Amino acid sequence: MEPRISLVTLGVDDLPRARGFYEALGWRGQAVQDTVFFQAGGLALVLWSRELLAADSGLEAAPAPHGFDGVVLAQNVRYPAEVDALLAAAKDAGATVTKPAGKTFYGGYAGTFLDPDGHAWEIAWNPGFTLAEDGTLVLPDFGA
Amino acid sequence: MEPRISLVTLGVDDLPRARGFYEALGWRGQAVQDTVFFQAGGLALVLWSRELLAADSGLEAAPAPHGFDGVVLAQNVRYPAEVDALLAAAKDAGATVTKPAGKTFYGGYAGTFLDPDGHAWEIAWNPGFTLAEDGTLVLPDFGA
Repeated sequence: MEPRISLVTLGVDDLPRARGFYEALGWRGQAVQDTVFFQAGGLALVLWSRELLAADSGLEAAPAPHGFDGVVLAQNVRYPAEVDALLAAAKDAGATVTKPAGKTFYGGYAGTFLDPDGHAWEIAWNPGFTLAEDGTLVLPDFGA
Repeated sequence: MEPRISLVTLGVDDLPRARGFYEALGWRGQAVQDTVFFQAGGLALVLWSRELLAADSGLEAAPAPHGFDGVVLAQNVRYPAEVDALLAAAKDAGATVTKPAGKTFYGGYAGTFLDPDGHAWEIAWNPGFTLAEDGTLVLPDFGA
């Protein structure tokens, strides 16, 4: 299995609301049948009804968990001030900030929000990771 | 907010087991304190204790949901036969196949497994999407 991810699909309870949230943040979605696709660097973020996504995965649909669903997406940014700006923009667009921006143990600066369907996003400035001009994240060799 | 994802962090209940699963599939992890990082194309997949990840996100830790946690990762592959091969390899490595490989409504071929912590992965051959040599997925213009 090649080490890569082609799609990240988020189960949502209200597709127009979810699409509106990401578009308010500047993403550009394309509606395809009951889904919305966003090109996101070298992969796609997809929004789809939680029930239909579960059924398509051979799983029982379950209500949105209260609190943490076990997965956190992150976007690393180029300057600490972008963390504050993005958390504020996400809040304005309907997100819930669960961790206000603050210094991290690794010398960075980060905060976390939940999108309207409870999916967690961390916005982080991490001086230890390389962020290429095209947005590609390159891990250091941790020697581990 | 730029349309991109830098990290996908999966909450896990047994870090060595989770790392072993992805390494059995050919991924190469680096342990950094209590986490394991995998370079995955232009982003990183990260494994971290479900409790610590929740706490770091300002959320209440919650037990692993039964069934669907609301997020599905996907890897698109180049040939239909790769879908069968990857599902078999994942099963051998400890995954649970929840949707056996089969034809999809969009003319592709796909199946889904859960990793040992219940995170869903679809393995898909989709002739409508461009998969670059470096693994980058490029969506078509759906005219939508």
